[in-house]
Amino acid sequence: MPRFALKVEYQGAPFAGWQRQKELPSVQGAIEDALARLERGPHMIAAAGRTDAGVHALGQVAHCDLIKDWDPFRLSEALNYHLKPLPVAILAAAQVEDDWHARFTATERQYLFRILIRRAPATHDKGQVWQINQTLDVAAMQEAADKLVGQHDFTTFRSSICQSASPVKTLDELRIEPVDGFSGPEVHFHVRARSFLHNQVRSFVGTLERVGAGAWSPSDVRQALEAADRAACGPVSPPQGLYLARVGYPADPFA
Amino acid sequence: MPRFALKVEYQGAPFAGWQRQKELPSVQGAIEDALARLERGPHMIAAAGRTDAGVHALGQVAHCDLIKDWDPFRLSEALNYHLKPLPVAILAAAQVEDDWHARFTATERQYLFRILIRRAPATHDKGQVWQINQTLDVAAMQEAADKLVGQHDFTTFRSSICQSASPVKTLDELRIEPVDGFSGPEVHFHVRARSFLHNQVRSFVGTLERVGAGAWSPSDVRQALEAADRAACGPVSPPQGLYLARVGYPADPFA
Repeated sequence: MPRFALKVEYQGAPFAGWQRQKELPSVQGAIEDALARLERGPHMIAAAGRTDAGVHALGQVAHCDLIKDWDPFRLSEALNYHLKPLPVAILAAAQVEDDWHARFTATERQYLFRILIRRAPATHDKGQVWQINQTLDVAAMQEAADKLVGQHDFTTFRSSICQSASPVKTLDELRIEPVDGFSGPEVHFHVRARSFLHNQVRSFVGTLERVGAGAWSPSDVRQALEAADRAACGPVSPPQGLYLARVGYPADPFA
Repeated sequence: MPRFALKVEYQGAPFAGWQRQKELPSVQGAIEDALARLERGPHMIAAAGRTDAGVHALGQVAHCDLIKDWDPFRLSEALNYHLKPLPVAILAAAQVEDDWHARFTATERQYLFRILIRRAPATHDKGQVWQINQTLDVAAMQEAADKLVGQHDFTTFRSSICQSASPVKTLDELRIEPVDGFSGPEVHFHVRARSFLHNQVRSFVGTLERVGAGAWSPSDVRQALEAADRAACGPVSPPQGLYLARVGYPADPFA
């Protein structure tokens, strides 16, 4: 059975998250249903990151095992045909080794979080940004973010239902960038690590937003990190600004 | 009765266009219904440009007459409250003179048209771009576009139902820009004039796309213009990439 890697883009809003659930629409379920139109199922696909309800992807990666020796381009075309009209698209497909695993072979995840600064309700970007009604001090947020980069016990920024074996992770990048967005000024958070704890990015963003608003100082963030206590975390940001942007592998299967 | 100017942003997809129609959802109808929640109607608002079904706005301008001497900020807040959950937002409100007219006082309209270049179906930008499956030669399109700038008889680029008194208009700008978009490479058309004929921008873009694809030469576009014949026009682009971006007035009422 040849194994295929799929690069997947989706809007999170219509789904209860990546993971298949009984009775609720999921991205995994949508792709598995599309696969079943090509080859009789059941299909079980695995993803690099199981995004929560409302979280989007620009470059999620999953793998599937099929019987036929599909041409990767035709496979992506056929899946996109059967995924319509859902906001899920297969951007690329590639055949991979039998022991290649979308989750376990991955060496890096990159997330993007978008904050839109404006008062009037979003229309074009509705459900795709976290909308905030005040300007944020990007320099203060970056100063606080710098204290989070590196290897730390991230218990403070970890949801209580996180299943990771250890709270110690290495954060490789947390870069904050003001952007002139389509619907107004935005602030983008670029976050990169080998792997993340559950809700880690949303906990970072929610806490750093408090710094940007002037309610917290950068050293409050350092103290919250050092407390290694979930209760020391700032508010967790809502999901709709979060995008799984890219998954890195030792060799890019789509190159 | 004080008169108010409203700067309006909307997504075109859910509406049969700007103009109120019996039985069909319209942007005008949505705003007039919201006004009726503030002051008993019927309300009749006028807009700078009556956008077609599926066409969006970033900065449409309309005006309304009210009884109460509303604080403009509170008026925009109240309208946004009553417009929810529709993808229509009042970005700004301002009191204007009684003879100020959103359409007749306007001295300039600016449109944006977005083409997204990619094969996989759009997810985040679904319904907000014209998706094309091949790269476009931007330099050739700009060379052709330059032949359209200035005062011309634009009969070729005018829909048969256009109600304008004359087909002669002055096109002030038609600038084509490659953009690194959120979902892939985009080509943006920035089009500016005092006023436009019906379907003029979509006729320009559909014709210029043929140049970008190599099917037409820039001089074919000049010949089409000189023919002053609707039959000489290229295909009319679909509406979903078009945005009424800005309306200019002798004095900006929202400044």
